[in-house]
Amino acid sequence: MAQLLRVQNFTVSSDGVAAGEDQTLERPFGNVDPGDLFFWAGATASWPNRTDPGGSRGLDDYFTRDFTHNIGAEIMGRNKFGPQRGPWENHDWQGWWGEEPPFHTPVFVLTHHTRPSITLSDTTFHFVEGDPATVLGRAREAAEGKDVRLGGGVTTIREFLDAGLIDTLHVAVSPVEMGSGLRLWDSPDDLRDRYHLDVVPSPSGVTHHLFWRK
Amino acid sequence: MAQLLRVQNFTVSSDGVAAGEDQTLERPFGNVDPGDLFFWAGATASWPNRTDPGGSRGLDDYFTRDFTHNIGAEIMGRNKFGPQRGPWENHDWQGWWGEEPPFHTPVFVLTHHTRPSITLSDTTFHFVEGDPATVLGRAREAAEGKDVRLGGGVTTIREFLDAGLIDTLHVAVSPVEMGSGLRLWDSPDDLRDRYHLDVVPSPSGVTHHLFWRK
Repeated sequence: MAQLLRVQNFTVSSDGVAAGEDQTLERPFGNVDPGDLFFWAGATASWPNRTDPGGSRGLDDYFTRDFTHNIGAEIMGRNKFGPQRGPWENHDWQGWWGEEPPFHTPVFVLTHHTRPSITLSDTTFHFVEGDPATVLGRAREAAEGKDVRLGGGVTTIREFLDAGLIDTLHVAVSPVEMGSGLRLWDSPDDLRDRYHLDVVPSPSGVTHHLFWRK
Repeated sequence: MAQLLRVQNFTVSSDGVAAGEDQTLERPFGNVDPGDLFFWAGATASWPNRTDPGGSRGLDDYFTRDFTHNIGAEIMGRNKFGPQRGPWENHDWQGWWGEEPPFHTPVFVLTHHTRPSITLSDTTFHFVEGDPATVLGRAREAAEGKDVRLGGGVTTIREFLDAGLIDTLHVAVSPVEMGSGLRLWDSPDDLRDRYHLDVVPSPSGVTHHLFWRK
């Protein structure tokens, strides 16, 4: 089996916005309310942060359930790890993901400012510099035959799209409009020249967009 | 996590028929052409019987990909194993599933005529008699904490529905009409009193029905 590079559960507004531009330590999504984007995932039984036994097991749950399935590593942009720009001022702060990060694999954080790796429970963050193909090569090796998840954000996904490295994308489009912010696309149709696309409206109100290479 | 009992990728015609009544060794689905039911699954990248590297990775692929995910055992009716009725005439014939059955777990075959277990590759078929709750107890123990798949056919699913033992059902409804045969339901709405239901049309032409307990 080929080792795929997959975008999963990435969520944008109806106008393509995934996060606000004014990210801070307290507000990882800037002036965007993440609840407006991720309500569909939080309602499912397989949502990784769920603490009670409830939750839906319909269509949306297939997507949250698939999040860890056959994934052996993740690649993420630096701003999914933390809000810092430029050199790290200290190494004490260990990212937004807490003592039990939901990845359970090696995670490669893209940065021009490397630092020592951090292990939190069964997730290890490696801080790496390099072009997308080189970083993907390292992640594939770490994934030991499994697929690699591309975790975002927008800038990272666009870089890997431009490099032609992404095999499949699942993007949920929320019915809310943001107006401004970090934008993945003008329209999902932007990718139709290179990808097949299934557009799947969910009873929850989001519309799942499933892309795979032509 | 609770151990669920799940029906997965079970496919019926628009009038609820899953198989013909006149099953033979040569025709496991009787006078029903299985291609009329399973075309959607066979087109996906994750179809277990796929031999070439192609296949779609859109909506339908989430369902074929989920087939083995967190499944530790299967329960099936005798007629999913073979066409024989009454006492086994011999034990040489080892079922329809070949040397590499697609289950990869213990499989409990419901029958009033028990016989010694058969191991083929990483699948072991056990032939068991008992009411649904008792057989489910055995399958749960064999599944070692994972979920149990209820593999069908129609008679078996209806027995377990009547016993209130099924947690989730994924039933794909094909656009073809059969007229006669083994029928799962008059309408998917028959289950709405006990289950939530997401109805999800796929670009392939089937309509996925996703039920989970209220």
